[in-house]
Amino acid sequence: MSLIVQKFGGTSVANPERIQNVAKRVSRNFEEGHDMVVILSAMAGVTDSLIGLASEMSESPDRRELDVLLATGEQTTAALLAMTLKSMNYPAMSLLGFQAEVVTDCSYCNARIVDIGATRIKELLDKRNIVVVAGFQGIDQGGNITTLGRGGSDTSAVAIAAALKADKCEIFTDVDGIYTADPNVCANARKLDSISCEEMLEMASVGAKVLHIRSVEFALKHNVPLYVRSSFNEKEGTMVMNGDHDMESPVVSGITYNKNEARITMKRVPDQPGIAANIFTSIAEAGINVDMIIQNTRAGGETDLTFTVPKADFKRALDLGKQVAEKIGAEKVLGDENIAKVSVTGIGMKSHSGVAAKMFSAMAAENINIIMISTSEIRISCVVEEKKAELAVRTLHTAFGLDKVEN
Amino acid sequence: MSLIVQKFGGTSVANPERIQNVAKRVSRNFEEGHDMVVILSAMAGVTDSLIGLASEMSESPDRRELDVLLATGEQTTAALLAMTLKSMNYPAMSLLGFQAEVVTDCSYCNARIVDIGATRIKELLDKRNIVVVAGFQGIDQGGNITTLGRGGSDTSAVAIAAALKADKCEIFTDVDGIYTADPNVCANARKLDSISCEEMLEMASVGAKVLHIRSVEFALKHNVPLYVRSSFNEKEGTMVMNGDHDMESPVVSGITYNKNEARITMKRVPDQPGIAANIFTSIAEAGINVDMIIQNTRAGGETDLTFTVPKADFKRALDLGKQVAEKIGAEKVLGDENIAKVSVTGIGMKSHSGVAAKMFSAMAAENINIIMISTSEIRISCVVEEKKAELAVRTLHTAFGLDKVEN
Repeated sequence: MSLIVQKFGGTSVANPERIQNVAKRVSRNFEEGHDMVVILSAMAGVTDSLIGLASEMSESPDRRELDVLLATGEQTTAALLAMTLKSMNYPAMSLLGFQAEVVTDCSYCNARIVDIGATRIKELLDKRNIVVVAGFQGIDQGGNITTLGRGGSDTSAVAIAAALKADKCEIFTDVDGIYTADPNVCANARKLDSISCEEMLEMASVGAKVLHIRSVEFALKHNVPLYVRSSFNEKEGTMVMNGDHDMESPVVSGITYNKNEARITMKRVPDQPGIAANIFTSIAEAGINVDMIIQNTRAGGETDLTFTVPKADFKRALDLGKQVAEKIGAEKVLGDENIAKVSVTGIGMKSHSGVAAKMFSAMAAENINIIMISTSEIRISCVVEEKKAELAVRTLHTAFGLDKVEN
Repeated sequence: MSLIVQKFGGTSVANPERIQNVAKRVSRNFEEGHDMVVILSAMAGVTDSLIGLASEMSESPDRRELDVLLATGEQTTAALLAMTLKSMNYPAMSLLGFQAEVVTDCSYCNARIVDIGATRIKELLDKRNIVVVAGFQGIDQGGNITTLGRGGSDTSAVAIAAALKADKCEIFTDVDGIYTADPNVCANARKLDSISCEEMLEMASVGAKVLHIRSVEFALKHNVPLYVRSSFNEKEGTMVMNGDHDMESPVVSGITYNKNEARITMKRVPDQPGIAANIFTSIAEAGINVDMIIQNTRAGGETDLTFTVPKADFKRALDLGKQVAEKIGAEKVLGDENIAKVSVTGIGMKSHSGVAAKMFSAMAAENINIIMISTSEIRISCVVEEKKAELAVRTLHTAFGLDKVEN
């Protein structure tokens, strides 16, 4: 008898029939005697259509109100699953973010969880209820509804699992687990049985869409045993392991790509102390996450500064960049939305050299131009033209020996 | 400078364009210097499609969860209006039921407001915000989401107006005001410039769909100046007056009908003290409102008992009736959903006799069979076959001299 937190993504609750399947799976685990907490995303497509509706009302919708709007998506699925379980005669109750005491900061549209009260979840579990929690949403200390950003329901699940000291947290999605690359792009991609949190974190940060990056941070920090599984079959999925692999670590575990970023370049920025701080403070204050930053020195006490931001924030970041450019006397600000970031990740990189060289050569052989480069201890990322992203993934997957072997 | 509460119904916020029109109207009043609180319904049709979705999940959806689901409708429009006002550069903020402290009892799907805290509304008004409140929804003392029943946004508006001691409460809808009869059914119906709360209460209770009955009770009890107006034009609408008319009251002010009830008959109920209490206690405990009750005595210490309930509760009421029938030894329980209730209402009835006789004669002349009759001091209602409802309305409208006079 353990306490299990299960999260089902948008495709797993995309229609009434699939919600009924989720109810069956959850109730089976409940029948086995486990305490069950279920976190749900909105039905696939709903968040996008709500964003579309908001954009009909306003070119750049107020973020507080956007969160009020978006929160309806998860409210809907939570209510539908709870009523389905009730109609199957299981004790079940839905809780919204504010009812589950998911307290966040007040960065609308991209809030961070600061605390989970979970009093009511525990009370309901004590009474042997299946507790269904609307994912993605929380409440700030002023009583305003917030959302956790795209994919945030994963983080809801792991944070709630951590708060409850759950025995495990299972993330159900539309794929069988974590792959060496996106199987839609790379036919030879293989499913991994396990992956370290560290690698997962790097892969999530550069485009592995299966897990929300903050959910992995939470799992790592709070030691939550995390599993990624398919809601459409009974396969084992991938275990996201805290700590080092038992086995010999492969040099490269996976190739990922990300088309959700855009590039902003500030030309001829005066090369003085404090200028970069000036630029990135104003971006940060707008709640925009900057990813890569590259500074090239030019002659004459000036420098070009290039950085990437989420495409959703591109327009705002560009406007802010232009304001700052004027203030600091930079020449001009350019933007490019047609980029993609391709990354190789592997914990084995720590003890292997030559990974970068191999990556760059493989891409050069396919005539893929590298626009920006960034690295971490266990990852190398290159920004390339958007249209070359898939080719780059397949090329690197083969180059690093990840292709599955036909039996 | 006054404090105005405005409520916009489902057709007034049916699509983005109409929400923009609402924003324009509200902002015009705000520009005039008034403090504005705006209460919204869900987009027309949304509540019904959510109920449809729920019925795909469960034959009789759990009422707590149904409320969680339905509350998304008003959450959506409140967010959309607030973001529209913000994009027009007006200070605006949406509040959901729990944020506006609309505290209700815990009768899910048909909750009653027990208190309005309104602390946050007042704070926002003090800072000259336009406050947009999601209608129809509240929160019970256990922190669960509740809804106020069909049309409940009117009640949200009047209750909030009462709590804020607003100067007036305007209910914007898709008709120009209160009519002597439904203009869709009776081409000769006339708009009333004013109507007494008392009459409005009776008319709302028997099918005048313009105002939610509890909103009128609230207006009467808390002395809220109430206006019913069209959101599609600038016409004056109808004032719902507290207290007697100034003018000579007409004998009959309006003819209404209602197709939302169903009839349940218990045959051969033992005629003993406590039996009726037994039946109606179990119905009441299920949160079902019984409207008309008629008891016919039969020979032999038995009686037939007929009552009407909302069609939405028909199935539950019938099941409960059958359970009780078995327990008390009644012969059988019959149900009929194909009924309508037609009513004549007028404050002048207090001082005029012969209204009932005139009503029955007019209906007899058109061969409309009367199934049940109930009366109040200022109203007479008859249950007829559903298909005869419109004919009955037109017949009575003419019989009581309400038809508009061609100039």
